[in-house]
Amino acid sequence: MSDTFVVVGGDAAGMSAASKAKREDPDREVIVFEKGEWVSYAACGMPYYVKGDVEELDDLVAVTPEEFREERDVGLRTGHEVVEIDPEAERVTVEDGDETFEQSYDDLLVGTGASAIEPPFDGLDLDGVFTIHDMDEADAIEDYVTERSPDTAAIVGGGYVGVEMAEALSARGVDVSLYEMLPHVLQPFGDAVAEAVEDHLRGQGVDLHLNTAVSGFDGEGAVEQVVLDDDTHAAEIAVVGVGVAPNTDLAADAGLELGETGAVATDDYGRTNYENVYAAGDCAEARHVVTGDPDHVPLALTANRAGRAIGQTVTGDPTPVGDIAGTAIVKAFELGAARTGVVDEERARDAGFDPVSVTVSAPTRAHYYPGGDDLTVTLLADRASGELLGGSVVGREGAKRIDTVATALTSGMTVSELRDADLAYAPPFSPVWDPVLTAAKVLGGKLDRE
Amino acid sequence: MSDTFVVVGGDAAGMSAASKAKREDPDREVIVFEKGEWVSYAACGMPYYVKGDVEELDDLVAVTPEEFREERDVGLRTGHEVVEIDPEAERVTVEDGDETFEQSYDDLLVGTGASAIEPPFDGLDLDGVFTIHDMDEADAIEDYVTERSPDTAAIVGGGYVGVEMAEALSARGVDVSLYEMLPHVLQPFGDAVAEAVEDHLRGQGVDLHLNTAVSGFDGEGAVEQVVLDDDTHAAEIAVVGVGVAPNTDLAADAGLELGETGAVATDDYGRTNYENVYAAGDCAEARHVVTGDPDHVPLALTANRAGRAIGQTVTGDPTPVGDIAGTAIVKAFELGAARTGVVDEERARDAGFDPVSVTVSAPTRAHYYPGGDDLTVTLLADRASGELLGGSVVGREGAKRIDTVATALTSGMTVSELRDADLAYAPPFSPVWDPVLTAAKVLGGKLDRE
Repeated sequence: MSDTFVVVGGDAAGMSAASKAKREDPDREVIVFEKGEWVSYAACGMPYYVKGDVEELDDLVAVTPEEFREERDVGLRTGHEVVEIDPEAERVTVEDGDETFEQSYDDLLVGTGASAIEPPFDGLDLDGVFTIHDMDEADAIEDYVTERSPDTAAIVGGGYVGVEMAEALSARGVDVSLYEMLPHVLQPFGDAVAEAVEDHLRGQGVDLHLNTAVSGFDGEGAVEQVVLDDDTHAAEIAVVGVGVAPNTDLAADAGLELGETGAVATDDYGRTNYENVYAAGDCAEARHVVTGDPDHVPLALTANRAGRAIGQTVTGDPTPVGDIAGTAIVKAFELGAARTGVVDEERARDAGFDPVSVTVSAPTRAHYYPGGDDLTVTLLADRASGELLGGSVVGREGAKRIDTVATALTSGMTVSELRDADLAYAPPFSPVWDPVLTAAKVLGGKLDRE
Repeated sequence: MSDTFVVVGGDAAGMSAASKAKREDPDREVIVFEKGEWVSYAACGMPYYVKGDVEELDDLVAVTPEEFREERDVGLRTGHEVVEIDPEAERVTVEDGDETFEQSYDDLLVGTGASAIEPPFDGLDLDGVFTIHDMDEADAIEDYVTERSPDTAAIVGGGYVGVEMAEALSARGVDVSLYEMLPHVLQPFGDAVAEAVEDHLRGQGVDLHLNTAVSGFDGEGAVEQVVLDDDTHAAEIAVVGVGVAPNTDLAADAGLELGETGAVATDDYGRTNYENVYAAGDCAEARHVVTGDPDHVPLALTANRAGRAIGQTVTGDPTPVGDIAGTAIVKAFELGAARTGVVDEERARDAGFDPVSVTVSAPTRAHYYPGGDDLTVTLLADRASGELLGGSVVGREGAKRIDTVATALTSGMTVSELRDADLAYAPPFSPVWDPVLTAAKVLGGKLDRE
């Protein structure tokens, strides 16, 4: 009898692993238990469904359950919740609504994902108060906007979800107020990006409340107001996006070790403290390419890549899951903002570096070529070694230029090595010195002088 | 008395060196001799002047002669031609139209650039037959199109200039025929790019003649026809862009060594065989980052970077000019095409590699997100080491993604290292796997299997 590979959770990490394992070894029995009905869907696309850019919720599904079952021959069981893992006995306990049964495994992948954090707000159960972390919720928001035509929205939290939902709801004709407890939106992107995005949000009519704590919501049955410490504002719909937390209860109960970040600790191959139990995606840690420390950055590429690698490993071809740089990009109305590596100076110091940084604005095309705009680039490096630590970009075009910085981080380049990278120039695409090179040039000069 | 730094040629390399030297050491005497009147202009912008995207020819000038003289305190002498270099005596002979004089130097930079190759065509002196390699010529083309309103154009040569001029003249309402002797346009970009661009050019109404040699032009005073081996086609204007050759006569006469490419041989610091004589820009060789061999790729960034480094070196801070990857990008109507490193398999074999390549097409945005298009990515790697050798991309958006590959080449990454780069994903900007990562994934699989 062939080995059995059991996967808990049917999203990015789980389905990537299942597909890859089956492709590498068609005789392998591969079973995926997913407690919901949606698998392999693009959570990142949900704001664009609400906005109206994406017509059908189904469009966000990359591969349907039927395709997994029929074309990829993956034993996908939706509506099946794994309620216990016994790593000593090498089996899981599964509930499918009707019955409870056990399934033994040779290899197990825990891909339980993350959930939107629900802050201790009053009135979270009012109609019209949403988090946005699964497809049903996205559907519900879209319905609510369509049916109720709210005039005012309160978005709580200025992370990706908050910024993207501000754009989505504005596009639907709703007056949006955004509340962020911290001094800046998009905190992991650093101040230069945050300030540019904040200016832009205000310019787009978003009523921005920084340093502002929300205590809850108020209304008769449905939300009517957002309640602040000393004020209330009208809000006929509310979206709470204050971050996500890894779903680790199942793993922790089974004795899988959690790391300092609170997510499941893993090694280079995505293994937990049990040799044949892996964890990947939003519930797991991954190693940061700059600090070398375990980190928890729940993003889609990390999940897909780790899942794919684990699918390969369990079929006999040990493949590292790869390090992460925490690279992220977000659209905020007409702006693109992106970050990679270590952008925060304090965090750099905590990791043992002596950070030096510059922020420069430089055009995305030749000065005489029509279109284009300034891209603001921040780069951070270690003073002694010149090693590049991270960076961010923000502007109306060219945010994907962060990939140049991310690639440089992957290979541990110094600022002067990046400055000497032979990037592409032609007037419609870039000035002679790409904005990233200009930033590297300025940072190099600063390192030389200091 | 302070040292004198003399620069021959007032374009990218020369003016970058002069400006940098003066900035690093304001006491340094810096003299630039430029035989023409234009300095520091963007030759790459000329097609967009002809097209009408750039209003004034002066817009292509990055820094004016007055700014160099007054703000940067550079001793710029336009209309001054250096006719001889005596490296033993450390002086140059200069003609300014009226008189001939000598100027001694402590350090010398030869930045004489390159010139458009004039093939042995009949009728090159007819009115309406142009090359496009300096500002006066760009001006003349624009005037000719405006005054004569030609119905038909013959463009000879399918390199950057040819492709860009096809777009420019089409935009001016001229029916364009393009003649290329080789089987493909944009030969250094490889077949995948060439075929995509050729399809697109045809779709845009360009009459493309591949494998077609031109023997000259015919007409009464002004060009009326382009003459092929066995045919003639109407052509009321003709642009010849069959490549450029380094201007090395001055250098060769002075005993500066030329390399195998025909350009001036230089070391890591841009030095020629004379310790205090440098060469940079379109007249000089540079080391290729993949092959390690001297190469001649006359492009703007190379010239700017080398000039800047030499300006730093002559003022006491030895700075390598940096390797090149031959990274290039070109707009062909609605398409962007780019290349970096070694794309040609035969060239890879000549350099001692055993090339394996893949070409994949993958979307530039999430499949459900509006806009976006497929980007076709080619990657080449060495079979034994997995080292990345080069790549190309072509598509309606995302051609600057070549920078990811160029950065990877700069740091000598393998295909699997590139595959594990943490690039940016959000639906408006990329699918989860950026097209470059998808190509790396496919190429990695091919390397594993073979």
